[in-house]
Order: sequence, then C-alpha cells, then structure tokens
Amino acid sequence: MIKQLEITLPGFRRGYHLITSLIEKELPELPEKGLLHILVKHTSAGITLNENADSTVRSDFESFMNKMIPENDPVYQHTLEGSDDMPAHLKSSVIGPEITIPITGKRMNLGTWQGIYFCEFRNGTRRRHLVLTIFS
Amino acid sequence: MIKQLEITLPGFRRGYHLITSLIEKELPELPEKGLLHILVKHTSAGITLNENADSTVRSDFESFMNKMIPENDPVYQHTLEGSDDMPAHLKSSVIGPEITIPITGKRMNLGTWQGIYFCEFRNGTRRRHLVLTIFS
Amino acid sequence: MIKQLEITLPGFRRGYHLITSLIEKELPELPEKGLLHILVKHTSAGITLNENADSTVRSDFESFMNKMIPENDPVYQHTLEGSDDMPAHLKSSVIGPEITIPITGKRMNLGTWQGIYFCEFRNGTRRRHLVLTIFS
Repeated sequence: MIKQLEITLPGFRRGYHLITSLIEKELPELPEKGLLHILVKHTSAGITLNENADSTVRSDFESFMNKMIPENDPVYQHTLEGSDDMPAHLKSSVIGPEITIPITGKRMNLGTWQGIYFCEFRNGTRRRHLVLTIFS
Repeated sequence: MIKQLEITLPGFRRGYHLITSLIEKELPELPEKGLLHILVKHTSAGITLNENADSTVRSDFESFMNKMIPENDPVYQHTLEGSDDMPAHLKSSVIGPEITIPITGKRMNLGTWQGIYFCEFRNGTRRRHLVLTIFS
Repeated sequence: MIKQLEITLPGFRRGYHLITSLIEKELPELPEKGLLHILVKHTSAGITLNENADSTVRSDFESFMNKMIPENDPVYQHTLEGSDDMPAHLKSSVIGPEITIPITGKRMNLGTWQGIYFCEFRNGTRRRHLVLTIFS
C-alpha cells in the first residue's frame, strides 16, 4: 500500500534544522513494516540524517560546509541570483535532496542519535515543499 | 507492482547533463502513486537532482567539483587508470550513484526547478547503464 | 511483500570496507524483482557503492576525505567527543547513511565493478547496526 502527502515547512533560516518531530506530526499512522521516502522539491535545500542531541553539530555543519563550498568562488558563472545561490545548488547535491527511512513497528526505525535534518542553504526564509511517500 | 527496465545512455562527455526528458521517454506508463528508483551501474558517474534552467549551473558544477576533488592530488595511490579516475570514484560517492523520485498522478513529482542530472566524471565518452525500478 | 532484518557488523577499523559478500550472506532469498534498502543507524558512519577491485581506491577514499573534511578545523565547536568526531558527522552526511539497490533475478543488480562500501569514520572499532528492508 502507498500513502503520499505533500507538506510545507515553515520558513527556516539558513542552516541545519532538526525536523524529526515535525515530520512525525504530519505522518498518518505508520505500518508495521515499510519505508518512508522524503523528497525536498527544491534545488537549494537538502535533507539528511545526523546527530539529534548537541546543537553545535548543526552549527558546525553550517560553518564547515560554508568553508568547503564557499560563496564568491572565482569559478562561478551563475552569480545573478546572489552569492548564496550557486553554493546552495552545490550543497543540495552533495548533501542530497531526498532520503529513505525504514519503518518498523509503526515508527521510523532510526538509530538512537539519528534525527532528520532539513538543510536550508539560501539566505532569508522560504516556504519549502516536501513529498512524503509511505510504502508498506 | 514492480516494473523494471535497464537502459543505456548515449556517451555523454565529462560534465553534468540534464536527462529528465530522456528518462521520461524510456519509462512505461507510470502509476497514480509510487516511486521511481534509478541506479547508475558505474563507479565513476553519478546521478542527482538540480536546477533545470540555466546551463551555467551545470558548468559551475563541473568547475567547482574539479576544484573540490582535484586530479593529481598527492595522496592518490590509485593512479594507473589516468588522472581523471580516482577523482571520478570520489565524486561518484559524494554526489551518489542512485536516486529515488516520487510518482504522483502518473508523473515524476519533482519541484518546478528540479531536473535529473546524469554526471559523467571521466574524460572521453562511455556507454552508461542505468536500472530503473518503478514501485506502485 | 516486505522483509526486514537488523544486522550487526563486526567492529571495522576507520576506513572504507567492502561488505557486499557480508550483506549477501545475511539476506534471505531475494525476489525476482525488487529493491533492497540499507540504513546505517549511526551518525559517524556511512554507506555507498564504489569500486570493488583495487584496494587502493578504498585507501585513497580514506586519505582524500580526511583532507577534504579534516580534523581540528578551527570552525568546529563540537570538539568534546574527540578530534575525529565532528569530521565523522560531516562525512556521514556527505557520503550518506543509507542506500537503495535494485534486485533483479534474485540478486542485487549492481554494475560489474560496484561493491557496497561500509564507511567507518571514527577511530577505534564499534559494533554498527544496519536495517535491511527488501521490497518486492
């Protein structure tokens, strides 16, 4: 069986945000066994799993990824949409725009320390759309 | 229900190529709801979603990724297959060799600006094989 | 139909390890057509597909990724768990903690040169848990 829904995230500021609870609230009752797939419908945002406890992990992600994939790199030609735009496209494909999570016993089956990160790579806040697909 | 097919891409030159229409042409009629999974059966190519409009995004991907993961780095020991080979392996795992896309209303449910990028990381052109699996 | 199992890897040392055969041994009989999803339930390890032949590809992964995402970067604030911890979190999201592989003719349908890499990003050895989900 397949259930599918589309949700809109509130405007998150640039950075890495823990959205596990937000996703849980949007989901219908989950099956005994299955998979949950989440797509971010944007090319300047991403989704991943990482540490759900210490918030400095999330701020270090922001600091380090800005250093690894910097603004204003001289190779960029796609600069019309702002200095944060091309790095945001690159980060979106390096972190990834979609993720699949197993479902076991009607819950997402994540590790103790794993949470879902929504990654906003642009300055300012934008309403972002996600497609959730539940397979069982 | 599961449908599965294997397709061969024409030889693309090194770079990032928009293949959304090419994939759509190869697909059978899609279900109302489901998932499409695409695997690139190679270790020096990748697949991702990114901006489908301005072609400088794709050329900036090529330029920047070549800088982030350069040829001839002194740490490389795997150099027998050419200076483009080890960077291609690294890029393949950083960008990723497979992707899952939701299907809604018999179409891939992507964002307005999202397209499928096939990423050829080697010099020269090679025939590349993809496995498409449709779940409904 | 869905089958799901959880397995524990032996403690692998820091680096990139080929686990295709290990995974094959743990799997039940596979269906004619389907998908295998693998989640690593940890935030300092990863999973990917890459070259299954020359072991220098795997040692080059270790050397180069340590250079691209180094220890002791001055931007890190999350340093209490050791100098290998924050880079491990970053690598986990750059390489990715989960992967989906097509199944065809009762076998994983990978390219000739593709194998499954388990990526241990921490020093020391830890027992690591994986969730395997088979869809058919």
